[in-house]
Amino acid sequence: MNFSVWAPFAGRVELRLGTQAVPMQRGSRGTWSVEVSPAPPEGAAYRFSLDGGPPLPDPASHWQPDGVHGDSRVMTTDRLRAQQRPFQPRPLSEAVIYELHVGTFTAEGTYAAAQARLPYLAELGVTHVELMPLAAFPGRHGWGYDGVYWYAPFPAYGTADELAAFVAACHGHGLAVLLDVVYNHFGPDGNYTGKFGPYFTDRWKTFWGDALNFDGPYSDEVRRFVVENALMWLREYGFDGLRLDAVHAIYCAGAVHILEELAEAVKALGRELQRDFVIIAESDANDPRLVRPVEQGGYGLSAHWCDDFHHALHAFFTGERDGYYADFTSGLADLAAVLRAGYLYQGQFSVFRQRRHGRPPAGVLPHQVVVCSQNHDQVGNRAFGERLSMLLPLPQLKAIAALTLLSPFVPLLFQGEEWGAQTPFLYFTDHQDAELGRQVAEGRRKEFAGFKWKEEIPNPQDPETFRQSQLRWSECKESSHADLFEWYKRLIQLRRRRSTEASAPFEVSCDEKAGWLAMWQGGVLAVFNFADKARQIPQPPGPWRLELSSASVPEDFVPAHGTCVYVRN
Amino acid sequence: MNFSVWAPFAGRVELRLGTQAVPMQRGSRGTWSVEVSPAPPEGAAYRFSLDGGPPLPDPASHWQPDGVHGDSRVMTTDRLRAQQRPFQPRPLSEAVIYELHVGTFTAEGTYAAAQARLPYLAELGVTHVELMPLAAFPGRHGWGYDGVYWYAPFPAYGTADELAAFVAACHGHGLAVLLDVVYNHFGPDGNYTGKFGPYFTDRWKTFWGDALNFDGPYSDEVRRFVVENALMWLREYGFDGLRLDAVHAIYCAGAVHILEELAEAVKALGRELQRDFVIIAESDANDPRLVRPVEQGGYGLSAHWCDDFHHALHAFFTGERDGYYADFTSGLADLAAVLRAGYLYQGQFSVFRQRRHGRPPAGVLPHQVVVCSQNHDQVGNRAFGERLSMLLPLPQLKAIAALTLLSPFVPLLFQGEEWGAQTPFLYFTDHQDAELGRQVAEGRRKEFAGFKWKEEIPNPQDPETFRQSQLRWSECKESSHADLFEWYKRLIQLRRRRSTEASAPFEVSCDEKAGWLAMWQGGVLAVFNFADKARQIPQPPGPWRLELSSASVPEDFVPAHGTCVYVRN
Repeated sequence: MNFSVWAPFAGRVELRLGTQAVPMQRGSRGTWSVEVSPAPPEGAAYRFSLDGGPPLPDPASHWQPDGVHGDSRVMTTDRLRAQQRPFQPRPLSEAVIYELHVGTFTAEGTYAAAQARLPYLAELGVTHVELMPLAAFPGRHGWGYDGVYWYAPFPAYGTADELAAFVAACHGHGLAVLLDVVYNHFGPDGNYTGKFGPYFTDRWKTFWGDALNFDGPYSDEVRRFVVENALMWLREYGFDGLRLDAVHAIYCAGAVHILEELAEAVKALGRELQRDFVIIAESDANDPRLVRPVEQGGYGLSAHWCDDFHHALHAFFTGERDGYYADFTSGLADLAAVLRAGYLYQGQFSVFRQRRHGRPPAGVLPHQVVVCSQNHDQVGNRAFGERLSMLLPLPQLKAIAALTLLSPFVPLLFQGEEWGAQTPFLYFTDHQDAELGRQVAEGRRKEFAGFKWKEEIPNPQDPETFRQSQLRWSECKESSHADLFEWYKRLIQLRRRRSTEASAPFEVSCDEKAGWLAMWQGGVLAVFNFADKARQIPQPPGPWRLELSSASVPEDFVPAHGTCVYVRN
Repeated sequence: MNFSVWAPFAGRVELRLGTQAVPMQRGSRGTWSVEVSPAPPEGAAYRFSLDGGPPLPDPASHWQPDGVHGDSRVMTTDRLRAQQRPFQPRPLSEAVIYELHVGTFTAEGTYAAAQARLPYLAELGVTHVELMPLAAFPGRHGWGYDGVYWYAPFPAYGTADELAAFVAACHGHGLAVLLDVVYNHFGPDGNYTGKFGPYFTDRWKTFWGDALNFDGPYSDEVRRFVVENALMWLREYGFDGLRLDAVHAIYCAGAVHILEELAEAVKALGRELQRDFVIIAESDANDPRLVRPVEQGGYGLSAHWCDDFHHALHAFFTGERDGYYADFTSGLADLAAVLRAGYLYQGQFSVFRQRRHGRPPAGVLPHQVVVCSQNHDQVGNRAFGERLSMLLPLPQLKAIAALTLLSPFVPLLFQGEEWGAQTPFLYFTDHQDAELGRQVAEGRRKEFAGFKWKEEIPNPQDPETFRQSQLRWSECKESSHADLFEWYKRLIQLRRRRSTEASAPFEVSCDEKAGWLAMWQGGVLAVFNFADKARQIPQPPGPWRLELSSASVPEDFVPAHGTCVYVRN
């Protein structure tokens, strides 16, 4: 069995395997390796010692069962691959993504428990499950964006085998699986990579910590660390794609951006395995470069998030104007604009950013824009983690669902949204470093210091904060929740029917003053009445047959604050 | 007369005009202004006081005759424009650029003295004069890359009127004029901009100082400061284009890169004035994005520098392998490769950078690549500022000239190169801040600490270092110098003849072992013999007629270390 580690500045590296100290040989570009025979058993503990220093866990550890400061463990991945069966995911043009946090999706917080819920997701009709980050992070629970072992799944969710089984089970239910990966920073606790090599640079700063060295001396190996990580999840665990966290915090000034290199490598793996992988970037840049083809100067990613849709929708329905909602003050006009174009900000001045923002989405196709009405950030970054279902009545929730699911873009749902869950999704951490835990709690209080109820802000470190965020599945059988679930399910079915007519143009008509909006594509028309009473609303040429109504009303009427969906007769 | 200044965080701004304190009014986005009537006379001293603080010079001052800490002076530019006459520069595909430092080009170091040499440049045959930076910097002399008043020409070179007269005189001699502008940092002394507004960011670091805020809050106004500066030189002074210093140190993560915005603004001005402006970027990135059209994801600049040509040439002829020359160890093979492709590094591992570097120059045309055998940096960043003419004998200088001037790229000559000047071009400064001066001198000594003669490194602050760098025009009448000048002149004529056949492919054949290279395009063939004796060298199908030989030899022979240029018969 070959052990290797990149440590370009070390003069001597030893593998510590049990009580053995095995000298390693320096290879090209500072990669040290040694062949150990006979191979140590699965689960054997190991570390690396540089220049006689203290033994450190492996930055590329595949298994950290004893936490981020514990031993790395030998884990081979052959049997993970063996679980995979051929699977062809739906293309993004037909996709509905479901964002899922393993720790809170079920009371058990495990892959196995989530797996038991897959028939439910299949019934709902979503096509892609997107798991929040799995890279090992400190503590017993957390959102996952503080990962420090990018190659080792967080052990509290289950074993690597259970993760591979979960992916295979998704495929068995016709569901593709995406994984959220964080390549813009490492978490603050348990990150030993910097001791091994120049993973970080001081040329750039990110909001969360040291920026990765993607373009300085020795950056080839850092880039390889990222690219190989992406390929591992796809190849070994069977994931169908990745969601890249906050790529606007990935700085790279080289002639080949790391995102381009990553996308190219994933495409090459897809050709090799004859699978269609997708790479979706979270970005707040409103920049078509992310998804344009490489030949057109782009990075060639499959799609990117665009928050303008969310913000316009949220600001219109809630009337909130704090923070970034300050940029979305035109109500229905903003919503109509974003439905038509994908980006609202195409170079206009943004009050929130105090600068011009974005550019026109030239060359960006609707299925390259992922939108949502809720996600882990939009819910969890609120002081009290309130979902829209805790802020708005049912008719509005139904309108919001229809606007999202019948938009021309790729809709993403956040776990529990589909039944209007009443559990919050709070910001929770379990930092083992006491001082860090104190800082995180303090930081959270400070962030919301402007609110009058600052004393009550849930403490991220309190285990109760985590527990409150777990879904209560009993809810979804209650009548109003079941009604909303059915509404989501029917909308997804209508979206699927529409997707067979993808070449039809998407159109919007809207009267801001009168307070209504109609949008249609191919044979599906959705009409929204934002007034206090039921009324007739102009329709495009039909004939149309009512398929779905948020409340019962006389024929040709749309309910107060209601939504009607029609299909062409 | 309207005075205005951007100071978004000030609560109160006063114009101090002579003994007057005139309150200014805050306009949109933090720009303060006031109308003063009757208009103060030309040359009236003024400053701005923020929130009752000490009066500061104007960041957008057009005239700083008393130095970087002195008063700003009222200067109107109408009469500068009046000096301009219609002029159409040669396109870059026919250009030969001549880099000129006003302070050392003549003993006087003024625009007026440089203007007297224009007939000489016209005789040489260059098409574009490129002035090293003019933005006002501290002291009596310097290279100019420490500018702090981007809108105010350095006063020691002459008045603004004399500068405009110089540009007009160039046009009169058929010469276009480019200006080197530094938008990646401000100099360390006399920079008051940061007191007025958020011109800088701490998110990025540059080698020379704080990075400019091109993408953070309030960056619109910083970008406008750059764009308006570029337009000023072109519109008011009549320059035909700009050379942007070190754009690889201009960081901008927004959806519209500042370079793209700058290029678009310059194109718009060109349409307005019906003039063809060029924007040439100095870049070490080997990145086609700089010059590709905006529709293809590029920034749409006219051309970019590529040092690979210089480094391959220099390493081959001098055998030097220090610093970045460590990446150019394949001698003639490197030179042939760079002649064929423009970039040598297209993604290969660079030992100097310790990472892969560059990407293939897809879509980059030969006239979008500016090359040289010498320039202010390549000469001046040597410990002793030696030109090639102080390192190599005449035959090699002739070969180098032919390789550069008959390359497919846009050649740039450095002042005095054409006669093999024996004056060095040293690094010289005149920092008035004693501590800064000491640091600069110390830094220079440390930079070359590896050399045995480190005690002799010329002190940049010593006025003698500046004086030694001034050209000695008496040299160019001496016979070997006159011979080289004639050689340059004939090569430029041949290049011009060839440029009428621009559609012909550029081809290279080369035998690394035997030590020869031939390159041809259309009707012009250059053959280089790198061996110690004269010999015959294979030619492409002719017939060819010898037009130019670096030494006299029997027919069909190429001299030892010599160059022959042929034209199609």
